[in-house]
Amino acid sequence: MASRYDIVVVGAGIMGVASAYHLQKNNPGKRILVVERYGAAAQGNTGRSNALFRNTFTSSDNQVLANASIDFFQHLQETGVDVGLQKFGYLWMMDGDQLSRSGGFLKRMEANGVETRQYSKDELKRLLPGMVTDFGADEEAELMSLRPVEGAIFGPKCGALDPDKLVRFYAEEFVKGGGSFAYNTDVESLVVGPSKRLGIEGEPFAWQDYEIEGISIRGRPGVLQAETVVVAGGAWTNELLEPVGFEAHVKAKKRQLFSVQPTGPKLRSLVHAEGFSEMGVVPMVILPTAGAYFRPVRDEECLWVGCEDEVNRAFIDRPDHDIESYLPEKGYYERGILPIVASYFPEFREAVVKAMWAGLYAYNTIDNIPFAFRKRNLIVVGGDSGSGIMKGDSLGRVVDALYRDEEETSLHGGTRYRTSKLGFDRRDVEREEWVI
Amino acid sequence: MASRYDIVVVGAGIMGVASAYHLQKNNPGKRILVVERYGAAAQGNTGRSNALFRNTFTSSDNQVLANASIDFFQHLQETGVDVGLQKFGYLWMMDGDQLSRSGGFLKRMEANGVETRQYSKDELKRLLPGMVTDFGADEEAELMSLRPVEGAIFGPKCGALDPDKLVRFYAEEFVKGGGSFAYNTDVESLVVGPSKRLGIEGEPFAWQDYEIEGISIRGRPGVLQAETVVVAGGAWTNELLEPVGFEAHVKAKKRQLFSVQPTGPKLRSLVHAEGFSEMGVVPMVILPTAGAYFRPVRDEECLWVGCEDEVNRAFIDRPDHDIESYLPEKGYYERGILPIVASYFPEFREAVVKAMWAGLYAYNTIDNIPFAFRKRNLIVVGGDSGSGIMKGDSLGRVVDALYRDEEETSLHGGTRYRTSKLGFDRRDVEREEWVI
Repeated sequence: MASRYDIVVVGAGIMGVASAYHLQKNNPGKRILVVERYGAAAQGNTGRSNALFRNTFTSSDNQVLANASIDFFQHLQETGVDVGLQKFGYLWMMDGDQLSRSGGFLKRMEANGVETRQYSKDELKRLLPGMVTDFGADEEAELMSLRPVEGAIFGPKCGALDPDKLVRFYAEEFVKGGGSFAYNTDVESLVVGPSKRLGIEGEPFAWQDYEIEGISIRGRPGVLQAETVVVAGGAWTNELLEPVGFEAHVKAKKRQLFSVQPTGPKLRSLVHAEGFSEMGVVPMVILPTAGAYFRPVRDEECLWVGCEDEVNRAFIDRPDHDIESYLPEKGYYERGILPIVASYFPEFREAVVKAMWAGLYAYNTIDNIPFAFRKRNLIVVGGDSGSGIMKGDSLGRVVDALYRDEEETSLHGGTRYRTSKLGFDRRDVEREEWVI
Repeated sequence: MASRYDIVVVGAGIMGVASAYHLQKNNPGKRILVVERYGAAAQGNTGRSNALFRNTFTSSDNQVLANASIDFFQHLQETGVDVGLQKFGYLWMMDGDQLSRSGGFLKRMEANGVETRQYSKDELKRLLPGMVTDFGADEEAELMSLRPVEGAIFGPKCGALDPDKLVRFYAEEFVKGGGSFAYNTDVESLVVGPSKRLGIEGEPFAWQDYEIEGISIRGRPGVLQAETVVVAGGAWTNELLEPVGFEAHVKAKKRQLFSVQPTGPKLRSLVHAEGFSEMGVVPMVILPTAGAYFRPVRDEECLWVGCEDEVNRAFIDRPDHDIESYLPEKGYYERGILPIVASYFPEFREAVVKAMWAGLYAYNTIDNIPFAFRKRNLIVVGGDSGSGIMKGDSLGRVVDALYRDEEETSLHGGTRYRTSKLGFDRRDVEREEWVI
C-alpha cells in the first residue's frame, strides 16, 4: 500500500467494486485503491444477498438503473463471463385491488421498455395447480390478512445471479487495469483536514475551508491520503459519515433467508413448475401478504424463502461487525413466514429448512431509491434498500460520472441518466411502490 | 399513574407540552399523560436553547408555522402571561451575492405577511460604527472566507423568549385542564402488540396487524397502555422509534453557546446599539461567514455567541443522556468563533466568557423542516433542526389535528395549514435556505 492515492474506495461489496471498475476504465493513469475490512471481496452483505434482479419497478429511476445493469450482466454472460445469470422471472401475485392499482405502473414500465405479461387466475391455477387463491370468509385468513389471488404480473427479464462471480469479474478487471485492493484493512474513520493547512493545532476550524484528507486505518499509524474518497460502505455508511458531520440517510435492517428442501412430490413439482420460463422452474413468487416470497435454486433443487417484515423489525444506524446482525431466527420462519406461504401453497408443509442466514439491507429511508452524491472530494454511493446488486453496474457508472463531473451518466446500452438525480441537493427520483 | 391512558405523550420539552396542551383543549374528557425522564419540564434541550424566534425564513412552511406561533406567544405576553418575549430583531449581514440571492425569498416573505427591511452598508456603519465591512485583499481574510458586508436584512418580528416560562405556561394549563405529568419517568421502549391478540408467544407475527400497545418504563413492570402514543422525544427520537422499525429522519448535533461579558466601553456600547428596535439593544446579528452569530441578553448586559459549524461536527443518531453531549469546548470559542466575530466586530476583543453550555439540535436531515406524522396509533413530532421553540405552538396544533384526523390545522390567528404537509408520505414542504 502506498501512502497516497488518487482515489480510495472504501468497501469491496458490489457498489465498491463496480465503482472501482468504472473509475479505473474511464480514468486511466489514476492510482486507485479499494480498501476492504474482510479478507476478500463480497464478504459482507453482497455475499449474503439473494442476488435477485428485476426491472419490474414502479419507479422510472429503478427501472432505468436496473434495466441497464441487467443488460450488462446478460452481455457478460453471453460473452463468456459466467456471472451465474438465471432468468426464471418474477411473478407478483395480486388481489383485485393490487391489480387495478398496477395499471399505471405497467404503462410506465412499457414506456421504459420493461416487458411484463399478465396471468389470469385461471391460467395461474393451471400452471400452479396446488395454489390456494381464495380463502372465503375464513376467520384465520382474515386475521392473517390473506388476500385472494385474482391474477399476477410476470416480469420475464428478472431472476438471480451469483454475487460472488459478479464481484470477482469487476475485481479482476479492475486489477488487470492497474487498480489494487487492500484486504483485511479496516477503515477507522474519514480524516477531515483544512484545504490549506496553517499548521495550527485543532485545524480545520469553523472558518476554514476543508476536505477529506484521507482515511485512517485501524492498527496503522498516520493517514492514508486520497485526493478523492469514495464511500461504498453499505450498511456501515453511517459509521464513516456521521462522525465527521456528513449524512447519507441510510438505516440497516436485518433480512433473513431460509433455504428449504422438498421432502415430498408436491413441493418438488412446484420447484419444477413449467410454463413460465425456459428454465423450467417456478419463478420468484411474491405473495400478496406481508411481503412473503420464495424463489427457486435450480441446481440445489430447493427454494429460498423470505419475507420483508416490518413488524417490530429494528432499524439499525450502526450495525456491529460480528455475528449479531447475522443471526437468523428459525422461529421467524416457522411462525412468521411459513403460515403465510403454506396458506397459498400447502405443499410447503413438505418443506424442511436445511440452511438459513441473515444479512442487512441498507435502506435509504426517504424513498427506497439508491443515492450517489459528491460533497467536496467525497463521493458516497449506497442506500439501495435491498436491491443494489441488480443496479450495481449503473451505480458504478454514476460514481464515475460524479468523479469526472459529468452532467449525464452513460449507462450500459447508451441510456443517458442525469447524474445529479441520485444526489440529495437536486434529488429527482420517483419513490418506489413495489417494495418487497 | 394509572395503567391505561387515552394518550401518552413522551417528552416534556416544548413539542411535548405544546402537543399536550392542544390535545387536552380540543379533546376534553380524554385522559392524557405526559411522561418525562427528568424531574421537571424543559430540562433537556428546550431549556438549553437560545430560544430565539424569527419569522424570516425562506421556506413558506417555516414562515407560516413560526409566524403563527410568534403571534400566539405575543398574545400571551400581551394578556399578562409572561413568556419573556423580547423583540430585538434579527439582522442578517450579507455580501453582494447573498443580497442579490435574497430577492426572491423576500418576495415570498412579503406574500406570507412577513415584514422585513433592508439596511445599506452606510446605514449599518452609522448604526454600528465599530463594524468592519471590508477586508480588501487581506490574505488572512481570504483564508477565513470573510465575506464583505454590503448590506443587511432586518426582521423586526424576531427576538427571543424564555423557554422555561413558555413551557411552564403550557404545562400549567394542561394540568388545569385535567392532564397529568409523570416526571422522573424514563421510557425504555415503545411496545408493539397485535391489533387482535391470539395468545401465541412471539406476537405480533409478520402476518398480523399491529399497533403500539403502550410504553415500557424503566424500573416499572408491565406496559403502560395507551390508545395513542405521541413521541416528542427531540434528539432522542431514534432511541424509541428505531428498535420497533419506525423511522423519523432525525440526527442530533451538538450546538454551543458562549455568554460573553464586555470588559470595555466599545463592546458595552455595541450591546446597547440604538436604532434597530424599541428595546435599545443590538439585534441578533448573523455574520456572512460560517454561520457565526451573537445576540443580546439585555438584563444581563451580555451577549451570547454561537456558530452553526459543520466542519467535523458529528451527527449523533442516539445521544447519551449524561453530560457527554453537553460539554462545551472553550477552544471552539477561542479558535473557531472568536476569530470570525472579532474580524467583523473588533470590540469583541473586550469580551470575556463567563458561561458556556451545549445542547443538541434535532435535525431533520432531509430538508431542515419539522415533521409531524401519524402511523397507526403513533404520532411523532420533531426534527425542528434547531428552530423548534419558535414553531412550537403551531406544531402542537398539528399534532392535535393528526390525532383528530383533521385535514387542515387551524393555527393561531386562523391560518389554515394542511396537516399532511409535515408527514413523510405526502410531505410537501419547501426546503429552508436560511439555516443558521
